[in-house]
Amino acid sequence: MIGFIKKVAKKIAQPPGTLIHVGEKKIETVKLSLIRYNKDILEEKEMESPFDCLSEKDFKGVYWVNVSGIHDAGIIEQIGNNFGLHSLVMEDILNTLQRPKQESLEDYVFTVLKMLYYDKSKKEVLSEQVSFILGSNFVVTFQEREEDVFDPVRERIRKAKGRIRKMGADYLLYALIDAIVDNYFLLMEGLGEEIEALEDQLLEHPAPEILQTIHNLKREMIFLRKAVWPLREIINGLLKDESKLIKKTTEIYLRDVYDHTIQVIETTETYRDMVAGLQDLYLSSVSNKMNEVMKVLTIIATLFIPLTFIAGIYGMNFEFMPELKWKFGYFIIWGVMAAAAVAMFIYFKRKKWL
Amino acid sequence: MIGFIKKVAKKIAQPPGTLIHVGEKKIETVKLSLIRYNKDILEEKEMESPFDCLSEKDFKGVYWVNVSGIHDAGIIEQIGNNFGLHSLVMEDILNTLQRPKQESLEDYVFTVLKMLYYDKSKKEVLSEQVSFILGSNFVVTFQEREEDVFDPVRERIRKAKGRIRKMGADYLLYALIDAIVDNYFLLMEGLGEEIEALEDQLLEHPAPEILQTIHNLKREMIFLRKAVWPLREIINGLLKDESKLIKKTTEIYLRDVYDHTIQVIETTETYRDMVAGLQDLYLSSVSNKMNEVMKVLTIIATLFIPLTFIAGIYGMNFEFMPELKWKFGYFIIWGVMAAAAVAMFIYFKRKKWL
Amino acid sequence: MIGFIKKVAKKIAQPPGTLIHVGEKKIETVKLSLIRYNKDILEEKEMESPFDCLSEKDFKGVYWVNVSGIHDAGIIEQIGNNFGLHSLVMEDILNTLQRPKQESLEDYVFTVLKMLYYDKSKKEVLSEQVSFILGSNFVVTFQEREEDVFDPVRERIRKAKGRIRKMGADYLLYALIDAIVDNYFLLMEGLGEEIEALEDQLLEHPAPEILQTIHNLKREMIFLRKAVWPLREIINGLLKDESKLIKKTTEIYLRDVYDHTIQVIETTETYRDMVAGLQDLYLSSVSNKMNEVMKVLTIIATLFIPLTFIAGIYGMNFEFMPELKWKFGYFIIWGVMAAAAVAMFIYFKRKKWL
Amino acid sequence: MIGFIKKVAKKIAQPPGTLIHVGEKKIETVKLSLIRYNKDILEEKEMESPFDCLSEKDFKGVYWVNVSGIHDAGIIEQIGNNFGLHSLVMEDILNTLQRPKQESLEDYVFTVLKMLYYDKSKKEVLSEQVSFILGSNFVVTFQEREEDVFDPVRERIRKAKGRIRKMGADYLLYALIDAIVDNYFLLMEGLGEEIEALEDQLLEHPAPEILQTIHNLKREMIFLRKAVWPLREIINGLLKDESKLIKKTTEIYLRDVYDHTIQVIETTETYRDMVAGLQDLYLSSVSNKMNEVMKVLTIIATLFIPLTFIAGIYGMNFEFMPELKWKFGYFIIWGVMAAAAVAMFIYFKRKKWL
Amino acid sequence: MIGFIKKVAKKIAQPPGTLIHVGEKKIETVKLSLIRYNKDILEEKEMESPFDCLSEKDFKGVYWVNVSGIHDAGIIEQIGNNFGLHSLVMEDILNTLQRPKQESLEDYVFTVLKMLYYDKSKKEVLSEQVSFILGSNFVVTFQEREEDVFDPVRERIRKAKGRIRKMGADYLLYALIDAIVDNYFLLMEGLGEEIEALEDQLLEHPAPEILQTIHNLKREMIFLRKAVWPLREIINGLLKDESKLIKKTTEIYLRDVYDHTIQVIETTETYRDMVAGLQDLYLSSVSNKMNEVMKVLTIIATLFIPLTFIAGIYGMNFEFMPELKWKFGYFIIWGVMAAAAVAMFIYFKRKKWL
Repeated sequence: MIGFIKKVAKKIAQPPGTLIHVGEKKIETVKLSLIRYNKDILEEKEMESPFDCLSEKDFKGVYWVNVSGIHDAGIIEQIGNNFGLHSLVMEDILNTLQRPKQESLEDYVFTVLKMLYYDKSKKEVLSEQVSFILGSNFVVTFQEREEDVFDPVRERIRKAKGRIRKMGADYLLYALIDAIVDNYFLLMEGLGEEIEALEDQLLEHPAPEILQTIHNLKREMIFLRKAVWPLREIINGLLKDESKLIKKTTEIYLRDVYDHTIQVIETTETYRDMVAGLQDLYLSSVSNKMNEVMKVLTIIATLFIPLTFIAGIYGMNFEFMPELKWKFGYFIIWGVMAAAAVAMFIYFKRKKWL
Repeated sequence: MIGFIKKVAKKIAQPPGTLIHVGEKKIETVKLSLIRYNKDILEEKEMESPFDCLSEKDFKGVYWVNVSGIHDAGIIEQIGNNFGLHSLVMEDILNTLQRPKQESLEDYVFTVLKMLYYDKSKKEVLSEQVSFILGSNFVVTFQEREEDVFDPVRERIRKAKGRIRKMGADYLLYALIDAIVDNYFLLMEGLGEEIEALEDQLLEHPAPEILQTIHNLKREMIFLRKAVWPLREIINGLLKDESKLIKKTTEIYLRDVYDHTIQVIETTETYRDMVAGLQDLYLSSVSNKMNEVMKVLTIIATLFIPLTFIAGIYGMNFEFMPELKWKFGYFIIWGVMAAAAVAMFIYFKRKKWL
Repeated sequence: MIGFIKKVAKKIAQPPGTLIHVGEKKIETVKLSLIRYNKDILEEKEMESPFDCLSEKDFKGVYWVNVSGIHDAGIIEQIGNNFGLHSLVMEDILNTLQRPKQESLEDYVFTVLKMLYYDKSKKEVLSEQVSFILGSNFVVTFQEREEDVFDPVRERIRKAKGRIRKMGADYLLYALIDAIVDNYFLLMEGLGEEIEALEDQLLEHPAPEILQTIHNLKREMIFLRKAVWPLREIINGLLKDESKLIKKTTEIYLRDVYDHTIQVIETTETYRDMVAGLQDLYLSSVSNKMNEVMKVLTIIATLFIPLTFIAGIYGMNFEFMPELKWKFGYFIIWGVMAAAAVAMFIYFKRKKWL
Repeated sequence: MIGFIKKVAKKIAQPPGTLIHVGEKKIETVKLSLIRYNKDILEEKEMESPFDCLSEKDFKGVYWVNVSGIHDAGIIEQIGNNFGLHSLVMEDILNTLQRPKQESLEDYVFTVLKMLYYDKSKKEVLSEQVSFILGSNFVVTFQEREEDVFDPVRERIRKAKGRIRKMGADYLLYALIDAIVDNYFLLMEGLGEEIEALEDQLLEHPAPEILQTIHNLKREMIFLRKAVWPLREIINGLLKDESKLIKKTTEIYLRDVYDHTIQVIETTETYRDMVAGLQDLYLSSVSNKMNEVMKVLTIIATLFIPLTFIAGIYGMNFEFMPELKWKFGYFIIWGVMAAAAVAMFIYFKRKKWL
Repeated sequence: MIGFIKKVAKKIAQPPGTLIHVGEKKIETVKLSLIRYNKDILEEKEMESPFDCLSEKDFKGVYWVNVSGIHDAGIIEQIGNNFGLHSLVMEDILNTLQRPKQESLEDYVFTVLKMLYYDKSKKEVLSEQVSFILGSNFVVTFQEREEDVFDPVRERIRKAKGRIRKMGADYLLYALIDAIVDNYFLLMEGLGEEIEALEDQLLEHPAPEILQTIHNLKREMIFLRKAVWPLREIINGLLKDESKLIKKTTEIYLRDVYDHTIQVIETTETYRDMVAGLQDLYLSSVSNKMNEVMKVLTIIATLFIPLTFIAGIYGMNFEFMPELKWKFGYFIIWGVMAAAAVAMFIYFKRKKWL
């Protein structure tokens, strides 16, 4: 998480709009794919060069260019130039440390989101940046990896499932954002399960290792929050967009995503509260445990220290110690000790220490 | 509470408006009942098929369709189509994990609320989703279960108690929401009693189990808050609704519910503060208890350790230890020990440890 | 405080506007008194029946009806009907758990406030609900008890002190609210003294009982806050009222009360902070105390445990222990022990434990 | 700080606008001084009676009446009447517990501020109330004491330093407020030094007395905050004043004071954070210290308790204990003990307790 | 950090606009340099006297005057007069304790920012004040030191890299602010690394010194926050500036800086959360450690205290103690002790203390 600041350094001292990829390179080659469709037609193809995009511009329908891999600044620049993107927009696409945002420019709307995955084996939240360009009849998407949350949307286009084939590019944008937000719920489920497991473990046996786990969870939450909170603003931005790229009929769908977004944000906050609660519970458990340990120590010590003292007394070597000569001295002393122990025991019982 | 995220997974990768019931199935069969009334007429009947709703549309007066059981997506869809509901609205009705919300569409107003019950035996807050559709002369309600907080409203309609029979569908909607909000007060009462009982128990004997109870209460509070906070916004939304479905005369009643809503929200916050206060009190009590235990240990140890040392001295086997030969050595030592004990005792008294 | 939720239950499942008294019955019989005045005339009388109010309606001047005791729903209803009050308004007057609020209706302004008393003997904040109806030339006030914070206002009317006899009903309303807010300062004084006393006690001897007192104070604060915060909103509401019942000339007076209200709210917050600070101080004191206890234990134990060990060594019964035969063995051992004790003492001094 | 509520009691039950001095009497006699000036003329005189003010009203230039001592309600009333002040304004001037505020009336602007001093010897923040009346060509100031933060302003008027002699009454008001805000920086400096000294002391030797000092500082902060926060609102109020008493040319100066105000507020918040940080540091230090003490106890106890046990074994008086007869039994036991001690020591080292 | 208040004192009691340098003198002589450029021309020169600035006013293009060293109030005043700056603006430039701000005056826009450096050796955040004056065709910058974050911008101007040579003075202002904000990322990187290192260290071995480091980090965070938060407002101010000095085409660049600013602010907040998390982790670790220590003490003590007691019993010198005469008494006692030790051991195991 701190890492996300580290790599910015190489960009510093460059003029704005300088196209440098910031972040890890996650796949080998950039893959360009195109889908174009309207109510009747559907075409899919892999593109070899970014220049192929251009030729599609006059298509009557929607066309969607998907770019997997953004580490090659040259390719992104060519695509950007084809679609007339501002150099700052291209810079943001390349910078995977970009904060989620939405910006309306003259001819297009630019949106950056974070795709989040939950790696159950490492118990870690992974992040990928996804950028969207919405034009009058096209959507361009930029992803860091090839594995794809957009597949269900592609499937719907192919099978003409739902209304997607009848609607415009703005509906496609909605469908893609919706796919990403839907995926957040999977993440929430994974985190929720981890929190529940942690809670069970905590109640059974609060080992010190849990502290580290809670600390990590808290960090994940800080990270998650940063990715999720801007969503509200972004979808609001799309809803209030004045560029007329987003049609009235799509608004109800965007409001629906907005609703889901609020639910994700609220869940994040709930989880934060819960993790904080777990930490409190852990600390209290430790303190309870310690209390119990202290009690045992105190009981043992307060029971035996006086008894040992009595034994010590009669272990002294004074020449004249009358009790030592008594016939039943030894047994009397045992009696005294037993009485002291019982008295102490009753005292502890009353104090509710036992 | 975490559970509410779990079941979303099955909906992911579906086009928006896909009608899938999300949540537990709480009753066996869907039950449809209809009440229609105006100042003079009152009719009640059970409907067998959702198509029966349609025939009521021209009735001069108010008619109210109540649907108990929302697990059958097919039936909900038929009802929805009869009333011209948007597919996203139907989706929300079916999704019991929906956040409480209010949306004004062209011909109708859509509202989702949470009905909350307090299960005293399990000390748990249970939740049921209730959705409302308000049209020009009808209200459709969707519940998960059959047992019914709406019965008092039905009774009022039947007996023409109050003004309900003279008013329109918007007043009916108000009366139903009011019934739900009224029920929250019962919940608050249950929780309040539990908090008070907990406090009494805490002051008497702060057992470690209380920590778990407090932790659970805190979780209930997080849950409650999520259900209750959106209410404010929802009723405000109804008050500011521009669809003219809500008449001027009903506004004063809605403002009254709004007032109650604020009271519920404030009580939730008060309870949160109180539970947090209980936790502080618990931790302080534990720490006080520990302090007391420590003091006893210290007093016993500091009293007897030096005495035992003295006894140890005269238990040594040196050949030449003059005190051992003294006639009253033994009694002198007893005197020394008693003096040391008394000095210590006075010291403790001064330090206010006794 | 939790109690305030408890009694709502009996109202649930009643149609809105059902007149049921919610709360404790605080006096035996309802008392109705009337004062009417203008610059020249002053009349006071006790009324026997609520119907007597009606006859005053055409009086040229201000008339003020005060109702002490609101447990008799019938009487309140008759009064309400006389003045044309909405049934929801009457319901709020009867419901002593009502949140403080202000509502402008067509012909009158309705305000609910909490009168707060500080019971010094029980160290408890008591609350009474006071409702106001402001009409064009009348004010109706509803109180739960007879003892009366309004007496100074009455006195001013009687003696024509200040400008009250020359002003309208709105000024009377102001004067009455002002009397209530002024009374809050007395409450604040009582609480402030308690906090100061607590602080002194805490610094002198932090007994565990203080924890309970702090906890109670915190609860009082939560309660106080709920009564005091809405005031701001209420007086703002009166200032922005569009019903023209409140004249321009009265506004400066209302702004003055507003100012006092802010001061009360700020003081409440200050007290909250101070009580929280006291709790921190208490916990730190306890922890300090414990630290001190621990130190004494450690010093005693670390001093004597090694010495006792040495004594133990020479208490062993080995046949061949050369030291035992030495002539000055015993004294040498004493020397060794003293040296060890001194070394330990110096060590503690350096560690700043002594 | 709590005291500020205490003295309100005597005002309760008085009609609004009753002129009673609330607060301590800080000087013996009320002193009235007048300065009148314009670009060319400068006159200064002490006034004997408040009626002398009146005669100055037609002066072409600015005249400034300063009143030191506000405990004589009669004098304040005469001055107030001369300048046509509302009785509520006069009441606020006399009430030294008044919250800082700004109010625009018809012909004049009324402002109340708190002058704050830091008493280094008592380590206490002292407060004095200063009220301002700004009219078209005059400023009236009311102070509680004679010693004077306004002296530099007077000096500037006398020496015609800066632009003050060329500007109007609004600039004079600005200059006076500026003098007060400037003085806050001195206070901040004093508090800052105290915090720094406390921190140094804390790091060197965290004595329990520091807790009390931190607690006092926290209270000072609460007090300071109440005096400083309203400033923002006040100066904003002056900037947005519509009475035309404040000219366009003075606005840039007021914005400058506003800036300083923000800086003072931010510093207050920073100090609050720092004091809270100090408390955390103190508590952690205490806990660290305790940990260290515990470790020493544990090490000593765990080292010697087993050794003492061994010594105890061979102190038993059984007739048949073969080891006692061994020639080197005593030395062997010493060896065993040394080995046990070394093993323990290594264990502690590994656990990083040493 | 507290220091920043200290030096204000010397300015107090001065008329507004009095030019006094507040802060440390960081370089010896004031250095004035000038760059003027347009698409075709580029001139750079060192100026000897502030009067040289004036002659550049009619240049068709952009000219940028950079002032390194602001301790000489005379020079700043001459420059200020040349550019027609208000005396309050000059005062702010000279006052290095000025809060970051932006102000639009008639002919120019005035902006104050903090340049922040991270001194890795001292682990300290250093601060320098940078002020900007933007006029129609010029930018004047004032720095405290000579070493220069503006070098990359100069380089871009010299090499006509990017669009800077083709744009106006507003773009230059943007480029300079961007250089400063970019530099914040370097600071963030340094701090991030420190936090990560601290976390690693904490998990390995939580030494008490870490507490001090965390405390220092928290203070740095408070300081950082104060410098960074106003940035948002400042850039917003520039974006909404109505002086027409900032052209439409530059806005998208300013929005980009705004974005970076938000990212810096968010990172600051994240770091705050993380440092707070570290403190929690530290305290919990210490408490865990202590728990562990306590357990060892308890185990050792509870094991050996009873055994020592038994040994003490048979060390008593009673004449009649039958066990002492038994042939295998010694070995039986060893058996009893071993049994007691094993029983205790099993008890501890069950309690999960081992």
